[in-house]
Amino acid sequence: MEFKILDNGRIQSKGYAMLDKNAKFSPFEFSRHAIGEYDILVKILYAGICHSDIHTARSEWGEAIYPCVPGHEIAGEVVAVGSKVSKFKVGDYAGIGCMVNSCGECESCKNSQEQFCEQGKTVFTYNSKDCFHDNENTYGGYSNNIVVSEKFAVCVPKDAPLEKVAPLLCAGITTYSPLKFSNIKEGSKVAIAGFGGLGMMGVKYAVKMGAKVSVFARNENKKQDALNMGVSSFYTSTDKNIVKERFDFIISTIPTAYDPVAYLELLKFGGEMAIVGLPPLENEININIKELIFKAGKKVYGSLIGGIAETQEMLDFSLKHQIYPEIELIKPNEIDKAYENLTSGKAKFRYVIDMR
Amino acid sequence: MEFKILDNGRIQSKGYAMLDKNAKFSPFEFSRHAIGEYDILVKILYAGICHSDIHTARSEWGEAIYPCVPGHEIAGEVVAVGSKVSKFKVGDYAGIGCMVNSCGECESCKNSQEQFCEQGKTVFTYNSKDCFHDNENTYGGYSNNIVVSEKFAVCVPKDAPLEKVAPLLCAGITTYSPLKFSNIKEGSKVAIAGFGGLGMMGVKYAVKMGAKVSVFARNENKKQDALNMGVSSFYTSTDKNIVKERFDFIISTIPTAYDPVAYLELLKFGGEMAIVGLPPLENEININIKELIFKAGKKVYGSLIGGIAETQEMLDFSLKHQIYPEIELIKPNEIDKAYENLTSGKAKFRYVIDMR
Repeated sequence: MEFKILDNGRIQSKGYAMLDKNAKFSPFEFSRHAIGEYDILVKILYAGICHSDIHTARSEWGEAIYPCVPGHEIAGEVVAVGSKVSKFKVGDYAGIGCMVNSCGECESCKNSQEQFCEQGKTVFTYNSKDCFHDNENTYGGYSNNIVVSEKFAVCVPKDAPLEKVAPLLCAGITTYSPLKFSNIKEGSKVAIAGFGGLGMMGVKYAVKMGAKVSVFARNENKKQDALNMGVSSFYTSTDKNIVKERFDFIISTIPTAYDPVAYLELLKFGGEMAIVGLPPLENEININIKELIFKAGKKVYGSLIGGIAETQEMLDFSLKHQIYPEIELIKPNEIDKAYENLTSGKAKFRYVIDMR
Repeated sequence: MEFKILDNGRIQSKGYAMLDKNAKFSPFEFSRHAIGEYDILVKILYAGICHSDIHTARSEWGEAIYPCVPGHEIAGEVVAVGSKVSKFKVGDYAGIGCMVNSCGECESCKNSQEQFCEQGKTVFTYNSKDCFHDNENTYGGYSNNIVVSEKFAVCVPKDAPLEKVAPLLCAGITTYSPLKFSNIKEGSKVAIAGFGGLGMMGVKYAVKMGAKVSVFARNENKKQDALNMGVSSFYTSTDKNIVKERFDFIISTIPTAYDPVAYLELLKFGGEMAIVGLPPLENEININIKELIFKAGKKVYGSLIGGIAETQEMLDFSLKHQIYPEIELIKPNEIDKAYENLTSGKAKFRYVIDMR
């Protein structure tokens, strides 16, 4: 028995929280809702650090709910299951991404686009009001366990490298989904703007799908890594004004202030750009419709993670082709340092917290 | 002989110009460049009034070149041809739209996307520097004749209703092109936002292509006209916040301040919105990328008229299916009044100036 059930049926939990937007992380004790009939309790073994965690915890995307326990790239072991759970048994590995619940009844939910629940009942893994549990705040993966509906956990085989699976649950699906949505295939010309945790996954998927892939990074630090991944051209972001090649598809994963129109310019007529990175809102990143008209025939859209069915598809694809993030394992007391490195652009790879 | 050649080979011309951005139209005498080997001289019979004319002449899209003779919806009769012209003979009808020249050598020009000439040599019909003729200013269709390369004139059969053909050269192609680009077909759910000259053409084409068409107009004045055109739902722009139906495709032809995100919201997942209307630049119409991400999977692009080959295709399609604008013929001394009516939303149909 690796967990403690409180008298009211709730699960005791401990994690790492920021207490306000300027704070350092500190240990935080709390409880999770009771294990319902269709819920599983997962002992968290690894939790990836996503740039979204930073934006949220620092209230850069609007005022966060504190204490804030981030983390939506979660991999662990099932340690208890509700009476009607059929997808998991105790001892299985499970992955949990950005969502933990939704209405399940609307068209979007039925089509496994749970992130667009038309009843507005998508519950995000942290910093979200859980309308299915008395509107309590959700706490994420920087913790020792989590209770989640089985529908919102994906199956991970026991021989998977679990520490590398964790970041797939956000960085993987966020880049895999738009590549599929824009029908990237053999011979497509793809550019990935921003070469952090998301960008690297985008590169690996696009290369495996047969695309000719270029990268725009903020500096040359990771050029050799990009070339090792099969990238055909490596540019720094300042090169974009002189680059002559034109692309069928661009994913922007950039999490800081930038001008999306400069990338729109690099699309072929009929090309598409997916925006998945959301810089701090104070940066007010806009596309003026005049630019769209004078750069006509270039489509832009946003992409927000992916549904649960597609997340499982992405995971299966990743395991089959051994597509994993480059990671650096850290201890919980190194989270603050990791945030600093991510913000300054010093981080080389995806940080994953070893929660064992 | 219906035209006068000056001693230097130039063609005498007279039109109607605005002398500054607040002026009324007044008669203006000028000359056109000489008829080159591949040029035709067209006696203008009808010239449509487009909202772009107003934006340009009033310097709402940047400072105009004055005197400004607008007009890029031109239909007339060929009265002289250069020695190497093969597409037209004297007496033929010709149509001229928004462009009168381009490099002809780049990929875009070779693909008949002359509006995107990669050498930046697209010469627009008015308020443009003609780099093929000593950078002289171009003057549009509110005049008695025009000299143009035969490549930039489209063929109009002699039995066509010429006064209704004129507006097709801009309002027609501007809406036809994105409908084709987004592959609208039998059963597509289409909404047209803005029900002026462009919007009405968009409705007629979409209906003929088999789409189920809705309209968003600024008021109910033209509701019956919309229903007569085969529209299934008519909304005013304030309805858009309560409308429940979702669309595969939306064209925004709106020429005044509005929020494009409110229309993006009305797209189905995977739907597309084409923006063809460009309000005065001072309105700063922007799409924040946060909105794109949280309304993910909805594509937006700008569309800018269409190439010459597609303009001919649009004209042939329109004549074959008898798709014409609703027009109101006016005399040149009524242009100012027409501008007032268009700006205030009082105009019911496309104004066409009878230049005969």
